[in-house]
Amino acid sequence: MNKLPLYEADSRLKRVQQTITEMEADACIITSSVNQYWLCGFIFDGFMFLFPEGDPILFVKRPSNIVDERAKQIRKPEQIPDMLREIGISLPKRILVEADQLSFSAATRLQAALGMPETKNISGEVRKIRSVKSEYELEQMRESARIHAYVYELIPSLYREGMTDLELQIEIERQMRLHGSVGIFRSFGENMDIFMGSMLAGDNAQTASPYDYALGGAGISPLLPLGANGTLLLPGTTLMVDMAGNYRPWMDDMTRTFAIEHTPDMAYKVHQVSIDIHNAIMKNFRAGALCSELYLLAEEIVNQNGLAPYFMGTIQQAQFIGHGVGLEINEPPVLTPRSREVLEPGIAFALEPKFVLPGIGAVGIENTYVVHESGFEKITLCEEAMIALS
Amino acid sequence: MNKLPLYEADSRLKRVQQTITEMEADACIITSSVNQYWLCGFIFDGFMFLFPEGDPILFVKRPSNIVDERAKQIRKPEQIPDMLREIGISLPKRILVEADQLSFSAATRLQAALGMPETKNISGEVRKIRSVKSEYELEQMRESARIHAYVYELIPSLYREGMTDLELQIEIERQMRLHGSVGIFRSFGENMDIFMGSMLAGDNAQTASPYDYALGGAGISPLLPLGANGTLLLPGTTLMVDMAGNYRPWMDDMTRTFAIEHTPDMAYKVHQVSIDIHNAIMKNFRAGALCSELYLLAEEIVNQNGLAPYFMGTIQQAQFIGHGVGLEINEPPVLTPRSREVLEPGIAFALEPKFVLPGIGAVGIENTYVVHESGFEKITLCEEAMIALS
Repeated sequence: MNKLPLYEADSRLKRVQQTITEMEADACIITSSVNQYWLCGFIFDGFMFLFPEGDPILFVKRPSNIVDERAKQIRKPEQIPDMLREIGISLPKRILVEADQLSFSAATRLQAALGMPETKNISGEVRKIRSVKSEYELEQMRESARIHAYVYELIPSLYREGMTDLELQIEIERQMRLHGSVGIFRSFGENMDIFMGSMLAGDNAQTASPYDYALGGAGISPLLPLGANGTLLLPGTTLMVDMAGNYRPWMDDMTRTFAIEHTPDMAYKVHQVSIDIHNAIMKNFRAGALCSELYLLAEEIVNQNGLAPYFMGTIQQAQFIGHGVGLEINEPPVLTPRSREVLEPGIAFALEPKFVLPGIGAVGIENTYVVHESGFEKITLCEEAMIALS
Repeated sequence: MNKLPLYEADSRLKRVQQTITEMEADACIITSSVNQYWLCGFIFDGFMFLFPEGDPILFVKRPSNIVDERAKQIRKPEQIPDMLREIGISLPKRILVEADQLSFSAATRLQAALGMPETKNISGEVRKIRSVKSEYELEQMRESARIHAYVYELIPSLYREGMTDLELQIEIERQMRLHGSVGIFRSFGENMDIFMGSMLAGDNAQTASPYDYALGGAGISPLLPLGANGTLLLPGTTLMVDMAGNYRPWMDDMTRTFAIEHTPDMAYKVHQVSIDIHNAIMKNFRAGALCSELYLLAEEIVNQNGLAPYFMGTIQQAQFIGHGVGLEINEPPVLTPRSREVLEPGIAFALEPKFVLPGIGAVGIENTYVVHESGFEKITLCEEAMIALS
């Protein structure tokens, strides 16, 4: 298990400390696994206290044998004020908490334990800081993308005639795990469940879902109505594969489309429009571009081709064509028509202009790009044309 | 996809409505997937409003094409007061929310949108109601347990000499999926991640984890330090398999232990103590027993055998020997020494007295039981002795 390099931990800590100062707070409390990992390189059950300057303090419930000189063992948050006092730190009056991740009851208990300080939400700010990746993080994403491409290249050899989407997905899942996928697929937001990714065969791609992902699918359980639903992979239809690129803690995101024999020319043409959108965006933008500009260019190409009714779904259409990616699959920025966000150098984002063709299925590709001053770096290096399964 | 029978939905709704009345509230708002599914048979992105009597209202953001006569489409919670007014319902002044599941920011936004009503937490009450299962729910658990046993029986045929814990786990995961596992393994609580279950080989069973599960393990990622870590399955050691029983929305829970050639007699003897604890508990208790009584009897048997240092871990020892199970793997009640909870008829619980033997590995079994007036029904029907892998 790789330890987090000290220079990485230091630079992340400093960026959060700057935010604490800017938000005029005395402390920030990190409780989510993903942000603990981002700041410490490991996770624990407990509370990470950061101050505008100096070392953080880790109040740890579990594991019981944690080895970190900044750690102090506790049983419950009510012990924290006394422990702070003992080391000469006065109780913070204005604290930042991860209000988008912490439960209402845990947050109110923490507030009461700390004598009712004023609280503000730091979730969005931390996600914004995390959206700009370091070279260390980008190297993980590139490596994940390489393995991701390698696994997708195995898909034609995993396919057998008469398979369902789910049967093929299970073989892909196995290959993902054999190549180092950690399994769990981290997404941000309440109830945003997903299991190792999504496969959409034929008209199942039209099914609207409760989740805020690009496309839906019926799934196999009413508790997870998303993705593959047991559809037979039929000649003349397409299969869209959007399985996780979680081979490293920092992930990539990639979708490819497969054609199941005698797929109509129309599907190939519309698939090419998705590739054209990628190429036009690569050619026209670089660091400093607005997310909305990318969306509007994509929309223009979609309209020129008369494909608006099929863009990002049919019955339910997603209102974005891409999103940041990193420790979670849905990071900021989001590429929407009204976004005011700027693509800063170091931002990594997935671009996924997709179409759903009734009677055929979903087509299009998704690549992950990194923003540089000189242009966008494509880290997804994998055949983009539709790939035949036979 | 099975629809929820009307009599089930009705009876659950009535039990929540009774709680609304008992807690002297005007309304209850359900936002978690698991409780939406429990009450509706499907999930959506939005807010389910329940009142002390009458039909609930579902304020739905997604999917955009929901088919339910109780549903009203919304974009944001701020629209709810006007929509309630239009149908002649006055704004609730005292509301119950799922404070253990809803984020702090979502809860405060909801409070503001509804004109700052008084709020109380209903998470614990709903989990308590859910802990008593109906016959419909128990049938799902029994069915899940039958498939679970069938998949475990395949394990000796999946084993090959020289495998790691992870390699074997990947083949088990594939069999689970082929036999209908939904993949996602639902657990309650913040940061309580787990991927399809846990396998502990040799001394990896001693590794303390940040999670509140029975045992730990190092895992393969710092973002998921739990379970298999790539340990070679060596002669003379044990492998404890605690993979998910998520073949139906209502789950079962089961652990079995495998012996990798020439495992010392001591491991067999201690494994038998775990079985003895199960048998003693089956023999001595029935509905009306206190959870603490079960724990104390187990502890007595452990102490008689001088096994306290190895019980429920070594470096870090869990303080419970079992837990309720259902839509989530960690439901109430929890079998702890100081619990005041009573085992009511209809409660389904997993019993998992486990030992960790340094230099050998974890031993013991976990079964799922249902509480009846006449005694405990064992729904886990699978060989209990240690199973040889060779």
